Amino acid sequence: MQLGMIGLGRMGANLVRRLVDGGHECVVYDHNPDAVVALAGADGITGVSSLADLAENLPAPRVVWVMVPAGKITSGVIEELAGTLAAGDIVIDGGNSYYRDDITHSKLLSDKGIHLLDCGTSGGVWGRERGYCLMVGGDRDAFDEAEPIFATIAPGVEAAPRTPGREGEVSQAEKGYLYCGPSGAGHFVKMVHNGIEYGMMASIAEGLNILHHANIGKADQEGDAETAPLNHPEFYQYDIDIEQVTEVWRRGSVIGSWLLDLTASALQKSPALEEFAGRVSDSGEGRWTVIAAIDEGVPAPVLTTALYARFASRHLFEFGAKVLSAMRKQFGGHDEKSPT
Amino acid sequence: MQLGMIGLGRMGANLVRRLVDGGHECVVYDHNPDAVVALAGADGITGVSSLADLAENLPAPRVVWVMVPAGKITSGVIEELAGTLAAGDIVIDGGNSYYRDDITHSKLLSDKGIHLLDCGTSGGVWGRERGYCLMVGGDRDAFDEAEPIFATIAPGVEAAPRTPGREGEVSQAEKGYLYCGPSGAGHFVKMVHNGIEYGMMASIAEGLNILHHANIGKADQEGDAETAPLNHPEFYQYDIDIEQVTEVWRRGSVIGSWLLDLTASALQKSPALEEFAGRVSDSGEGRWTVIAAIDEGVPAPVLTTALYARFASRHLFEFGAKVLSAMRKQFGGHDEKSPT
Amino acid sequence: MQLGMIGLGRMGANLVRRLVDGGHECVVYDHNPDAVVALAGADGITGVSSLADLAENLPAPRVVWVMVPAGKITSGVIEELAGTLAAGDIVIDGGNSYYRDDITHSKLLSDKGIHLLDCGTSGGVWGRERGYCLMVGGDRDAFDEAEPIFATIAPGVEAAPRTPGREGEVSQAEKGYLYCGPSGAGHFVKMVHNGIEYGMMASIAEGLNILHHANIGKADQEGDAETAPLNHPEFYQYDIDIEQVTEVWRRGSVIGSWLLDLTASALQKSPALEEFAGRVSDSGEGRWTVIAAIDEGVPAPVLTTALYARFASRHLFEFGAKVLSAMRKQFGGHDEKSPT
Amino acid sequence: MQLGMIGLGRMGANLVRRLVDGGHECVVYDHNPDAVVALAGADGITGVSSLADLAENLPAPRVVWVMVPAGKITSGVIEELAGTLAAGDIVIDGGNSYYRDDITHSKLLSDKGIHLLDCGTSGGVWGRERGYCLMVGGDRDAFDEAEPIFATIAPGVEAAPRTPGREGEVSQAEKGYLYCGPSGAGHFVKMVHNGIEYGMMASIAEGLNILHHANIGKADQEGDAETAPLNHPEFYQYDIDIEQVTEVWRRGSVIGSWLLDLTASALQKSPALEEFAGRVSDSGEGRWTVIAAIDEGVPAPVLTTALYARFASRHLFEFGAKVLSAMRKQFGGHDEKSPT
Repeated sequence: MQLGMIGLGRMGANLVRRLVDGGHECVVYDHNPDAVVALAGADGITGVSSLADLAENLPAPRVVWVMVPAGKITSGVIEELAGTLAAGDIVIDGGNSYYRDDITHSKLLSDKGIHLLDCGTSGGVWGRERGYCLMVGGDRDAFDEAEPIFATIAPGVEAAPRTPGREGEVSQAEKGYLYCGPSGAGHFVKMVHNGIEYGMMASIAEGLNILHHANIGKADQEGDAETAPLNHPEFYQYDIDIEQVTEVWRRGSVIGSWLLDLTASALQKSPALEEFAGRVSDSGEGRWTVIAAIDEGVPAPVLTTALYARFASRHLFEFGAKVLSAMRKQFGGHDEKSPT
Repeated sequence: MQLGMIGLGRMGANLVRRLVDGGHECVVYDHNPDAVVALAGADGITGVSSLADLAENLPAPRVVWVMVPAGKITSGVIEELAGTLAAGDIVIDGGNSYYRDDITHSKLLSDKGIHLLDCGTSGGVWGRERGYCLMVGGDRDAFDEAEPIFATIAPGVEAAPRTPGREGEVSQAEKGYLYCGPSGAGHFVKMVHNGIEYGMMASIAEGLNILHHANIGKADQEGDAETAPLNHPEFYQYDIDIEQVTEVWRRGSVIGSWLLDLTASALQKSPALEEFAGRVSDSGEGRWTVIAAIDEGVPAPVLTTALYARFASRHLFEFGAKVLSAMRKQFGGHDEKSPT
Repeated sequence: MQLGMIGLGRMGANLVRRLVDGGHECVVYDHNPDAVVALAGADGITGVSSLADLAENLPAPRVVWVMVPAGKITSGVIEELAGTLAAGDIVIDGGNSYYRDDITHSKLLSDKGIHLLDCGTSGGVWGRERGYCLMVGGDRDAFDEAEPIFATIAPGVEAAPRTPGREGEVSQAEKGYLYCGPSGAGHFVKMVHNGIEYGMMASIAEGLNILHHANIGKADQEGDAETAPLNHPEFYQYDIDIEQVTEVWRRGSVIGSWLLDLTASALQKSPALEEFAGRVSDSGEGRWTVIAAIDEGVPAPVLTTALYARFASRHLFEFGAKVLSAMRKQFGGHDEKSPT
Repeated sequence: MQLGMIGLGRMGANLVRRLVDGGHECVVYDHNPDAVVALAGADGITGVSSLADLAENLPAPRVVWVMVPAGKITSGVIEELAGTLAAGDIVIDGGNSYYRDDITHSKLLSDKGIHLLDCGTSGGVWGRERGYCLMVGGDRDAFDEAEPIFATIAPGVEAAPRTPGREGEVSQAEKGYLYCGPSGAGHFVKMVHNGIEYGMMASIAEGLNILHHANIGKADQEGDAETAPLNHPEFYQYDIDIEQVTEVWRRGSVIGSWLLDLTASALQKSPALEEFAGRVSDSGEGRWTVIAAIDEGVPAPVLTTALYARFASRHLFEFGAKVLSAMRKQFGGHDEKSPT
């Protein structure tokens, strides 16, 4: 097939490469002309310098993949496409858009007869090699039309052993892409995927942090009325080699996972991780997952406290902590301790 | 009655003052002779320079209150008392001992026929004036014998309106002290009291922190693929006067409480609390409460996350946070952001 | 002053009674005529049968208090008032509206020159007697005009001792009402108040639940590979009288609070609370508080897990729990245990 | 090598089979003679009927693996072995013992010159086929002596691609077993592994539960003052096929993991999981992980709230929830709602 790609950052460029490797032809655009130059010219890749050019260089019905930052930038591109594309064309928003924006964008485009597919795209910088896991929402017919694109981008069934009990014809899901439902469903499922990701990451991080402090009994114990004493220092005398632990867990354990593989890899390069300060960003999906849980009225304490730990790592509870110290000073006369 | 007091820190000294104001006589000891000198000589207060002296200066059966830091120091004093006191004497541990230590101490003393009462003592630096809330465990007969002491130290029924439905004779609990059960029961109840205290304090602190950031929509919003955007800055344009808010909540609101009174008082003195860094200590009871919940198999997410926020305020998740940043770097190529 | 009251449920009727007791005159309306009949006729209370009548019976500039369920019903009333009232009039929304709706309503009314004050009203069924804690947002001039109303409804300074350091003229906040900022600020502060309320309530509930299970060591301990053993049953042998504990904590303890008073009162009537099944409702503010924390990017684990415990009490994690049991069956061959 | 195996349940029997497949010889014992009969007689497997027989049938220095339920049963076996084995022998505790018990057991055995290795064994019912992940603590020389056993039981390096950057000789950890440190270190690392497992499982379960309720907007919305309204039902109209979602996530996504594989497998067999009631057991390690975090003073909110969700699934917050409903009744006059 022929596909237009808008946005040639890390994700967009890799998608293009994977698509042309799979036999598709791509017309590519980025607001930064250098990004177009860097990619265009290779077999099957045509660079263009405007969205109008992009439309002209694609056969109708056009399929255009948008891979730009979520929020205002994606909205701007989609609004522009509403004026550039024609009825019957298909826009795929492959970024990390909020699923509610998909519903808005979908209405805007459908007024022109253009279809929007929202496509949650998981796989990060490894996707070109491993393939991307794709969760798609929107019009079912448009999905069917664009399916060859998804099939090429996805990892394929051979990326994992088939689930016991699954036999015969290989399903979409087994190939690594899934039509999830009407507009927004793809990004909704991707959003929850990322929420789970936050929880899994925090699970590993909390566990490793407990191992990191397993030798706390070797330190001198403070002993005063305002410090919790460690009653049994003899139980915390272990110097655990955390890099080796993450490696051993990669084989045969219950927590084997890609995130663990990546953690082992990071620790292999840098056992103490001293190049990091521990200020952990979050990029929206974790927040939206929590808001969905709240709206639905279902408990999600693990996903939520995982998110909050990121906020706290950026010192955003500081005023609250001052309030706590102030109360302790008030009722107990306790001064804050200096860092030790 | 006559009472021996061991430990003349803030709490012990104030207890002595409240007891002599209430007509009791105190024989007082501290390992620091200056503390004895500072208190002794006033009407009803006799200073001594050793535990042996203390025992000699009290009529049998003796009642001795121990008010020293929990843990090894308390254990040391109780072991010494086991050799100094006599059968029929009563030791009251009024500190913040772990209730499990009470069981050990109680056995040690009962071998000599000495009774141990464990007494959770709440009230902090305000107790001399307000009275202390007392939760007592141990031998019931010993409790009955020492009751006049507890009655004097406690706030008394007039400290709060009677609970609707309570009529006639005023109960112990209404006077502010309670026999809770066998050895350890008093400190167990006090431990849970402090667990609740952690939760309440954190509730106020989290709420005020949300108010503190209610103007976040006025700040420039970052806009890139790795930062969660604030979709609706127009909803976060409030500059809330937090000192005034804590004051208004003191009257008629559902969250009226002594902790809120103290918070209002702290903010009245220092609206931005800049004298605090936000490193919040914990002194054991919160931890033990969580361990009790775990042992009992009952959920306590509020009390536990309150405790964890204190740990986090002391930067004890730092290695875990580095692990998170390392994973993000691995799968998404994301560098850590600099502080803004 | 004269005030129109729309909505004569528990809250609205009590507000009217407190206002006429304080010398104001009220024109009252409810969509249920019986509610109007029940209240009207007493000194200072005039009943009307439509919003148009209400407007006619009030002198300009009119002050109208809306006390109806938040959401669609409040929006409907405010839309109708936009057509009934005149420029210069003041509408006070005293219900539990989402503060974002205030901003919408305020714009709608200001197109007609009508002012909207959003007023968070805390105090529940006790407010008529204790007074209500009032948090107000909107136009400052409108607030000043309506201040006598707020001053009468609020508890007044004598409801609590003055905060140490506050001297001289008594501030608004000390009287129990506060102008918090522009439109929505009142309900924003009330929202956070309720968030704190959830956290405090859960703190008490978790603590009492730990006390309730303090005798778990008396039960036979299961012993198999799939059940966590209680290593030290000897530490969980306490039969705590929870009613007495809540009573003793009311005097002198750090956690003294109105919520504790109410808990003691409930337990005094019904020590085992067997009339309750433990399905805990939530009414919006707790959810909105969490969403505000998420939007602001600040951690609120205590307030959030308190909310989630309510969701879980209504069995809304059931599918998730089935997933957990299914995983355990998969990797360990563990069947679910029957209830014991 | 020759190995004695004590305990022929699911785990013990599978270990024996894997060991004889790998060329070792096993002398096997179980307190249930039928279990011995079922296994003995096959090539390389000798059944015995007592621990004394076991000792007699093994060449010195003996290596004996204990695979019985943790707690009293393991302690009993180890005490008996202290009298049956001889100096220089090695006991391997492969069960889920609390690492603190290892320290006790180790001292007991070392008085007789017997070495104890504590070996955390992960892999569940799949271990015979996949191999087991082994985390070992104790005397380093004893570990070196028993290493051929561990090497056979472990999955081997081919079970996963080598971590980028690891080259040359394959380390122990890469083969799937690791010497972690002195007595208790193996079970400590296994304990934390299980803590992480709880967090990961809960992450998946919470996420799927959010997907399960993604159609909540299709239900009639209650509208009264005591129920949180769903402001935007239009955003919750998705009927997500959760089985397919777990399948698609298996390839290329960030959350790919063995636990996800198992979840997909469970849902493949039973998409609604109706054979489960959602009462989730816990078997100790999750609790001990939290206690370690508390003792170390490090935050672990994700691992802890994961554990608490299991407690809550067994209705162990019921009394606390009744307290909440009682408070709501007190301050707001709210009756509990009936189940809908």
